Order: sequence, then structure tokens, then C-alpha cells
Amino acid sequence: MYRFGILGTGRIGDMHAGLVDAQADASVTWCFDIDRARAESTAARVGGRATSDVHAVLDADDVDAVLIASSTDTHIELILLSAQAGKPIFCEKPIDVDLAKVEICREKLEDFDVPVQLGFNRRYDPSHREVQQAVASGEIGPLELLVITSRDPSPPPRPILEACGGLFRDTTIHDTDMARFVLGDDEPVEVFAMAENRVDPIFAEFNDVDTAMIVMRSESGALIHINNSRRTSYGYDQRVEAFGAEGMVRSENCRPNEAVRFSSAGTGRKDQLLHFFIERYKAAYEAEIRDFIDCLKSGKAPSVTFEDGRRALILSEAALRSTRENRPVIVNYAPGA
Amino acid sequence: MYRFGILGTGRIGDMHAGLVDAQADASVTWCFDIDRARAESTAARVGGRATSDVHAVLDADDVDAVLIASSTDTHIELILLSAQAGKPIFCEKPIDVDLAKVEICREKLEDFDVPVQLGFNRRYDPSHREVQQAVASGEIGPLELLVITSRDPSPPPRPILEACGGLFRDTTIHDTDMARFVLGDDEPVEVFAMAENRVDPIFAEFNDVDTAMIVMRSESGALIHINNSRRTSYGYDQRVEAFGAEGMVRSENCRPNEAVRFSSAGTGRKDQLLHFFIERYKAAYEAEIRDFIDCLKSGKAPSVTFEDGRRALILSEAALRSTRENRPVIVNYAPGA
Amino acid sequence: MYRFGILGTGRIGDMHAGLVDAQADASVTWCFDIDRARAESTAARVGGRATSDVHAVLDADDVDAVLIASSTDTHIELILLSAQAGKPIFCEKPIDVDLAKVEICREKLEDFDVPVQLGFNRRYDPSHREVQQAVASGEIGPLELLVITSRDPSPPPRPILEACGGLFRDTTIHDTDMARFVLGDDEPVEVFAMAENRVDPIFAEFNDVDTAMIVMRSESGALIHINNSRRTSYGYDQRVEAFGAEGMVRSENCRPNEAVRFSSAGTGRKDQLLHFFIERYKAAYEAEIRDFIDCLKSGKAPSVTFEDGRRALILSEAALRSTRENRPVIVNYAPGA
Amino acid sequence: MYRFGILGTGRIGDMHAGLVDAQADASVTWCFDIDRARAESTAARVGGRATSDVHAVLDADDVDAVLIASSTDTHIELILLSAQAGKPIFCEKPIDVDLAKVEICREKLEDFDVPVQLGFNRRYDPSHREVQQAVASGEIGPLELLVITSRDPSPPPRPILEACGGLFRDTTIHDTDMARFVLGDDEPVEVFAMAENRVDPIFAEFNDVDTAMIVMRSESGALIHINNSRRTSYGYDQRVEAFGAEGMVRSENCRPNEAVRFSSAGTGRKDQLLHFFIERYKAAYEAEIRDFIDCLKSGKAPSVTFEDGRRALILSEAALRSTRENRPVIVNYAPGA
Repeated sequence: MYRFGILGTGRIGDMHAGLVDAQADASVTWCFDIDRARAESTAARVGGRATSDVHAVLDADDVDAVLIASSTDTHIELILLSAQAGKPIFCEKPIDVDLAKVEICREKLEDFDVPVQLGFNRRYDPSHREVQQAVASGEIGPLELLVITSRDPSPPPRPILEACGGLFRDTTIHDTDMARFVLGDDEPVEVFAMAENRVDPIFAEFNDVDTAMIVMRSESGALIHINNSRRTSYGYDQRVEAFGAEGMVRSENCRPNEAVRFSSAGTGRKDQLLHFFIERYKAAYEAEIRDFIDCLKSGKAPSVTFEDGRRALILSEAALRSTRENRPVIVNYAPGA
Repeated sequence: MYRFGILGTGRIGDMHAGLVDAQADASVTWCFDIDRARAESTAARVGGRATSDVHAVLDADDVDAVLIASSTDTHIELILLSAQAGKPIFCEKPIDVDLAKVEICREKLEDFDVPVQLGFNRRYDPSHREVQQAVASGEIGPLELLVITSRDPSPPPRPILEACGGLFRDTTIHDTDMARFVLGDDEPVEVFAMAENRVDPIFAEFNDVDTAMIVMRSESGALIHINNSRRTSYGYDQRVEAFGAEGMVRSENCRPNEAVRFSSAGTGRKDQLLHFFIERYKAAYEAEIRDFIDCLKSGKAPSVTFEDGRRALILSEAALRSTRENRPVIVNYAPGA
Repeated sequence: MYRFGILGTGRIGDMHAGLVDAQADASVTWCFDIDRARAESTAARVGGRATSDVHAVLDADDVDAVLIASSTDTHIELILLSAQAGKPIFCEKPIDVDLAKVEICREKLEDFDVPVQLGFNRRYDPSHREVQQAVASGEIGPLELLVITSRDPSPPPRPILEACGGLFRDTTIHDTDMARFVLGDDEPVEVFAMAENRVDPIFAEFNDVDTAMIVMRSESGALIHINNSRRTSYGYDQRVEAFGAEGMVRSENCRPNEAVRFSSAGTGRKDQLLHFFIERYKAAYEAEIRDFIDCLKSGKAPSVTFEDGRRALILSEAALRSTRENRPVIVNYAPGA
Repeated sequence: MYRFGILGTGRIGDMHAGLVDAQADASVTWCFDIDRARAESTAARVGGRATSDVHAVLDADDVDAVLIASSTDTHIELILLSAQAGKPIFCEKPIDVDLAKVEICREKLEDFDVPVQLGFNRRYDPSHREVQQAVASGEIGPLELLVITSRDPSPPPRPILEACGGLFRDTTIHDTDMARFVLGDDEPVEVFAMAENRVDPIFAEFNDVDTAMIVMRSESGALIHINNSRRTSYGYDQRVEAFGAEGMVRSENCRPNEAVRFSSAGTGRKDQLLHFFIERYKAAYEAEIRDFIDCLKSGKAPSVTFEDGRRALILSEAALRSTRENRPVIVNYAPGA
């Protein structure tokens, strides 16, 4: 039985807690949140003790691993505390929105030998994963074009917008990670981005953008395109299209049901796309926790690493810089670059 | 150059005349219609001389073949006159709505050696044909279930309704022929049908039905289903689904364009289906004329024969009798049966 | 907290037990199976005490409801014992394969006032349900044609085949129930069926069939078609198509992912359909248990009743008789008919 | 009757000649080609006199308009000669691959008052046009993202490759024009492109590329993406996706038939996409000639102008320069810029 301490039991932390609890070989023994009532609410649902003192969790004997789902600006502190306490770490994305802090964290983590898995849930989505596997298996031949469509249903509320680090670090980071996932060892090395304010004036207030297009080039010369919007009238639009010398494979969107309508107003009409990440990536959230536990059990290294989190952020930073300097940006993944 | 006399230049005859004219190796030399103005209108468009005297066409030296597209109740007379004149015959479906008359025609035709091709255009539709070929090639293994969906966009006008012989002889006959086309040598031998008046009271006036379901059994034990309606809110619904031991192949509907819409009102919405047979089966009408000319040129027997027209009618009659006697009807194709 | 006794912990019972356990307001307190080891295995997973004595469950104070998932031939006995014990009953379909026994059970149940819900899981499938709701809401106008495609991936193993009562009572019963579900108050009143042995000689051994087509007529004159096969090369094919005066709505199949492939071998290729009922109807199995608990909590009568189970069986019997007597069969739902 | 002189009767000219001939109100009276045998072959098929002297056509009284389909490097000369002769002009794309020559041609054309229509056939494709109309009508709200996928089935033969001016001027020019078509008055003002050699070493030989991604920004801040390949294993991939504040509309690919296959190897498999432009854009080629004749008849200015040809080329040039200088390029449409 792997016993988890959940660090941060807001909406996402509460969801993760439930998924841990649903595993046959895992349970939640501690729920920490700075808002103790929130910790208690999760604990009441999934079991475990509630606390607003993180050390109660980190010092506990009945905690085999922690799951960090607190606000982004506390991730690094909790990662380092957990590492010091020797607890294997599952941490929601992103590591942080400040690349300099991520670098420092990376260096400090070198002193510890604890597994760290990043919560890039989309890597576990059955449809995107099928695309990645078709590329990895050579089924479509050498990858030449990769087109990622990633559009949120609606802007986040103001407090999240304030803290999220902007479109590129908050949302696009999933897509830069997806690109890296599909590309395998063939890292993106050059990034150009154009971005606009089209959706809501609130984004401009935060010096942020809401609509963007990116092109990237990989080391081998594969070309990658990402397009993003913060508002999609028809739901959460998430597609990955990989084109190679011998074929194409793409992941299409998911809907709550497979009913199709025909009338004088048109044919083939289906329901809205699944609304947002909790619904759309339900299977993916389950699978990533499952994979984390399997890694702990087998001693295998996590499949989505701290370095993956760092590199996706480097790409998002490059996209941001590209829009600000209006030029293609060469990517440098070297430590301290 | 194959020179055609068009016998009957109403809507369908005029369309056929245009398709003949568009062939590189065929032309229209005569247009006959009892309404001379109508014959002249077609002749003005596609060339040839106009007449309201059918013998002018049948006796002409510059006529290598006739295309009969007059009203159904004149088909048999024109078939026999054309056969006597030694002209190869392309005749629109059905041969007639009276099976007894078809029997007599069949007997009389034995005295002549002219090719006769029936206008079961759907056999030439690229999508249905692909289904037939997948079955014939063995791709889906032995055929076990065949489901034919065939729904007209709207009821025919009263004068056509009066003369057409009812749903089974007018519309379902396309579907009984399609079943025979896909089944190949494995003839339907038993028919059961249920029918209703749901669309318009006018059908009841003519002792006709507008909504029907049929099941048939083939000699080998394949089961066939046909469903029909005389009114479809979303266009002309035409699908054939063949299911066998090793797979399924089906033909889906055609639309005027491939645009797809996504909005808060739903996703994946496409245009209406192509409205009716002239639009939907345009390629099929072209291909059947092409095939007829190729048969004439090569001396090959026509691929859709008088006997095909007779057997499809026998099946439609069986369906009609089944609804009237509310019992399954055994099919007998024997001459004079 | 609703405390369940699971009666029968084979494959389906074990699945149901897990689903009960996953509800926030329900738990499993007892697991009964004639094979005690099997009961223990389920209890180890979901909690509760294991027993091979059904009375231990029925007499227990900590059992608020029973879930019957034992072999079909024990359903009626367990229903009646549970009713005597005053326990609300969720029973897997079918009630029994012998209509005479069902009649007797129906009569005896009149003495008890316990809710009984039948496990027609497909009624809870999100896609089929969307079809039913489109019909019920009047969205497609009066229902005129209903086409149900229901094809199993592969024949059941011999022991199940022996006990299941044949295609019509085992599989088609889901479809006759689906027809009733979509039709609402407009009951099927006439049934004709054709059936064949095409899949495997084993069916003939049991005087059973493996391939069938049915047409039914409802009281209002809607026409219904069902087609079945016991073997489908491409997965579990489950579709419902409702056609009305103002439109059509249909439920399409489900796949494990939404990846689509394009290559020189063809375009648009997707994965196999979900293999069988446990995968395909996962959401439906969850939803039916949820609904049962909601009924218990609210005192509302179950939405899928004993009478629904009886009537679906009457229709399946009618289909069977139709194939044997090769004639349409008039349906009589009257008690003792 | 509009009488056409066809200038250039290679593959495309011969196709255009046939389409002119098929119009009820147009005919081909002259066929010119520097290869007289080629001119004769077309004339034999569609009528008219054959010549290898272009002046025979331009001086002829029975020529109401010319259709220029000669090799690209002769377009400008034939445009100017035709303008001098006072003949309305339909000219295949591109005007020329040398922007400086196009500028000179533009200036000289100011002296003449003849209609000139450019052969951007894709504007007439029913599916892409539906996308453009959905944008123009406001149906999807203000346009924010436009994604154009445009992939050829296979590289052109060496002689065409030599003369075509490279990927951007030969193929991408269709896509830059499509972007302008959908954008309406909202012109692209900035272009960034990445390109690679991935398909065949022959492209490098000509200092050309075969794989490219472009992003553009319009005046209003709409973002546009184009991706191109010179080789597509599954056919000719042509899609346009327009995303706006209130919805998305996209044009999907066309296939030779609507048959769909299901087997143990996968479900939903359809035929290859239509192979290349002659098949894929058949309806578009017909419609653009129809539109040109309608413009001549009504005196309305052509809907695809010389200026459209010039601007699409300016965008293609900007894309090319962007790849060479690895920076975003600001677009200047001003004459002589």
C-alpha cells in the first residue's frame, strides 16, 4: 500500500486525492492545505488526517510519497522540503513560472535521490498517446510536421490569471511539452511566436496575451506549429496532428456522448466538446498517478521528469521572448544558460 | 460515334440526353417526345432533330441506340418497338409496374437479339459500388447482414404518385435491386414487409404507403433489411451497409461540400445531404451511360439486364403482397410463376 | 450510507460490487456466492463480509439493499427471498429465460412492497440515452423508424451458451428493451423475425441461432428494426438510430481513443470498437447503480422495472416464436396471456 | 456565345478548353500552342482551329476572350499581347514568379481596360468557399485564427521543378491567396516562415525547399498558419480551418467515394484522398470559368484580379525572404515597394 500525503487540496489536489484513493494499492493518509477546512473536506472524502502544518505530513512515518498540488508559487519550496524529507514527489505542472528559480531548484535537487514526476497529464491521454506511439514506432516514418491545436473554453478567473505567469507559461507549456513528448529525442531548438489580445481586455491588463501562434524547428528539421486561444465557443479543443513521410496520425476531440443529429438545420451535429481539463483528461489524470505508483513499486525512474518540466518552460519562455522581440529565438537547454 | 435517339425528353430524358452528348464517342441525333415543344427544347441544348413521332426515330438510319425515358406506362411499348427496329435499348427503371405485362414483354423480347440495359443507376454510384465490390471480392467474408437505408426527401407530386405504382414498385425497387446487386448470385428468396401511412394522407388516397420496413432472406441465408420513407427532413438519405464474417463496409451519404461547423450550438455540423436523385446520383447517371456505350462498342452484354428489372419488381411485388397478407412471401422468379 | 449485499460475485457481480463501493453514499457490507472463495475475493477488494449462505445476507441488519448478479436461473428465487426479507432489489437482466416462471414471480411479488430495478444497463448509456431523450422531447417529431444495430464481438463460451436461453432471450432482449425505452408509451405490438446459423455450428447444437433480423410495429405505427450477430470482426457494434418527421438522431460506437490514421493504405482509420459490454457500457453500469441509490434515497420508484424485464422478454419470445412459425406474431402483454 | 481562344494547350490548358466547351454559352474557337500537334489534339476534342501562331488567335474576330494556360514564364507576355488586342483575359496562376516583372506588367496594364481574372481555382472550391462565406457573413464572429493545411501528393517532375520558382511561389501562393480570400479586407501584414528539405534531395539541387511552416499576422491581429509538404502518402491534403470568437468552420478533404470499412485491422477506414488538383478541384475549375463568363456577360469586374495575383506573390516572396533571413518580414503591397 503506497500511502500519500496530498500537499494542497484545492480543486486539483482534491481530484488527485480521489484518484489516489481509487487505486487498489494506494491510499491517502494525510491531507495538507493552508486552509485547514479545505484539507478536512478532502480528508472526509478520501480518508487520511487533515492538517494545515506541512511538516506534520513530511515528518509522518505513514507517508510514502507526496503529491504537490498547491498554488504554483509554492511548488519549489514544497519540492525541496519533500526531497529533504526523502519523500518521492509527484508535482503538478508547472514547476514554477520563473525559470531562474527552477534553475536553482534543479541544482539543489542534485543533492537528493528522490524520484520527481511532473504532472504533464496530456502525455497520458489515450488519444495523444496513440499519436506519440505511432511516431515512436516509426509507423508514419520520420516526423516532418507536427500541428498542435490547444484552445481553452474560457479565460481563467482573475486570481488565477494574476498568478499563472501568462498564456505561454500556463497553457502553452502543455503544448511545448506535448511537442517534446511526440518528438522524442529530437528536441526543439528554435522558436518563433506571434501573439495577440483578442479575447478579453483583462489579459492586456496583466501584460498578457490570449491568442497565439508558434512555429518551432527541431534539431532534425521537423517543423512544429502550436495555436492557442483562451476562449473557444464550442468547448475545449485539443488536437495533435503528426505528419511523416509515410502517413499521418492525429488525435481528435472527445465529447460526452456519441449521439449525432440530422435535421433541416444540418447533418452530423454532435454535442459540445468536453468542457475543460478535468472532464477531458480524466483518464489521463488516472493514468499518470497509476504510472507514478508503478514507478515507485518497480524502482523505475518516472517517465515525466523535473527536466521535462524545465525544458517545456524554457520553450514557453522562448515563445514569450520571441513575441516581445519579434524574432526567432534559439533555444538553449544547458544548465544555467 | 454512337448516335442516340432519346425517347421521352421530360426531366430525366433531358438529363440523359445531356449526358450522352457529353460522351466523346456518342451524340444525340433524335429527340422524341409526345410534347413536341419539350423535344425541341432538349434538341436545342444537345443537338439532334426533334419529333413527336416515335417512328421517325425508330426508322432513322442515324440512330444506333435508343434511350427510353418516357412515362413508365409507355416503357414496354417503346421497348418492343425499338427491339423490332433492331435498336439497342437503354430503358429507365422500372420496366413497368404491372408484373403481368413485364412477363409478356419478356416473352416477346425472346424473338429479338437486341441488348437491353435497365437504368438502375444506383449500381453505378461510386460509394454503393465500393460496397458491392468489397462483398464480391470476399474482403468482408461471406455476407451475413445487409442493411439498406433509402429515404426520399419528400413525396412526389400527385401526378407522379398516381402513376408510379406505389412505394414498393417506385422507390423500393431501387433497394430490392441494390440488394440483388450486392448479393450477386445469392438471390433473395423470402420477403416480409411492414408498411404504414405516416407522412401524408395523400398516400392513403392512392391506397399507397409512405413508410416501410422489409426483411428478406437469401438462398444462402444472408438476411437483408430495407427501410424506406417518403419524407426526410435532412435530405436524401441513401446508405448501404454490408456485414460479413470478416468485416463491414458501408456507403455513407454525400453532401454538396465538406465544410464542418463548430459553435456553442454543437460540433461537427455539416450541410444537408444532397437533395435528390439528380444531384446525388449525378456520377452514377454518367457512369451507366458510359457503361452502356462500352457494352455496345465491345459487344459485351449489358451489366444491368431486363431480367434484373423483372426480378427487382418481383421482390417489390412480394413486399407489397407481404404487407397486404401480413405474412412472409416466398419468391418465385420462374417465368410465368 | 446505503449498505449493499451482493448476491453472486462472478464477473458481473464483482464489477457491480466495485461500482457500489465507488459511490460516496454506498458501501458493500456482504458478498455472497455459492463459491465462497469467489465471495471472499470480492470482499477483499471492496470490503464487507463474505459468505456462501445467502440467508446470512438476507437476515443481516446492515444490508439496506441487495444486488442480484448470480446465474440467471437463480434470479427468481433470489428476488423472492429478498422481497420476503424486505430488501430493495437491483437484479441483473434477464429476470429469467422462462416466461412462465416470470409470470409466477410477478404474481408473488404483488404481495411485497419492495422496489425492484432491472439491470438494463444500456438505458443508461450516455449516447443511447441522448437518442431516447431526443425522441421523448419531440426534437425529431413523431418517431417513424427505429433501427437498432446490436452485434456482439464473439460467441459466449459453451457454459453460458447452454444456460442463456438463446440469442433472443440473452442478447436481443437488450434490444427489445432499447426499443421500448425509445418508444416510451408506444408499445411494440407485432413482431416478425428471421434468424440463421452463420457464425458457429455450436449454436445449432443448442437449437439456437447466431444471426437475426427483426421488424416490429408499435401501437402508433412506428416501425422498428433490430439486427443481431454473435460475432463481429471489428468489435462490439452498438448503434441506435431514431428517425422522425423532423429529424434523425443516432448513437454511434465508442472507441478506446480518438486517434485517426492516414496512410497509403487508406484514410480515417480508427481503433477497434470497445471490445465488449464491460468496457463499452462502463459509464452505463455506473449510472444505473447511481440511479438505483437515488431512487432508494428519494423514495421514487425505480426507472427500470420488473415489468420492463417481463415485457422485453415477451418481445424476445415473440421474435423466437416468429422464427419458428415463420409468421408475424401479435404481442400480448396482459398478465397470464 | 462567348468564343474563347485557348493560349497554351498542355495538361491544364486542355482541361480548361474542355470546361469552356461544356458551358452552354461558350465555345472554343481557337487553340494555340507552340507545339502545334498539342493544339490540334485539343481542337479535335473541343472544336476550334489549331495554330502555333499566337497572333492568329489575338487578331481573330471570332475570339471574345482568351484563356492563358501556357508555361508560367510566358504569362506576362501573353497577358500584355492579349490586352493590346483588347481581349478579356483569364490567366492561370501565378502571373509570374518574378515580382519585378509583375510590377512592370501591372503598370503597363493600366493603359488597357480589359478584364483580367486570375486562376486561383481554390477560391471556387465548394468547401473552402463555405469557410470563406462563414467568415464573411459573421457567422463565426471576428476571425482570430486561420489554419491552412496544404500538402501535395508528390513532387512535381524535374522540368516543372526547374521553372516553377520554388515551393513558395508555386504551391504556397495558393495558400497565401486562400488566406487573403478568407481574410477579406483584413490583409496579412507580417510573415514568418521556416522551411526544410525533407522529401527529396532534388529540391536542394534547385536551392528549393519541400516542407514549410508559415505564420502571418493580419492588419486586425488575426493570426494565420500555413503548412506545406511536397509529398503526402495518403493523397492531396487540403484543409482550411477558420476560428473566430463565436465558432469554427473548416473544410475537410474529398474522397472518390463515401465507402467506409470496418475490420479487425481498424474501423472507419476510407479511401485515399482525391489524388491531385485536377481531381480535387474539378468543381472549382468549372466554377471559375463559369464566373469569368458571368463577369463578361454582366460587365461586372472579375472576382479574382491581377492585384490578387500580385499580392499573393508578395506574400510568397515575404515567406521566402523570411526563411532566408530567418526573421519576420513586414509586407508592403504599395506599387513599386
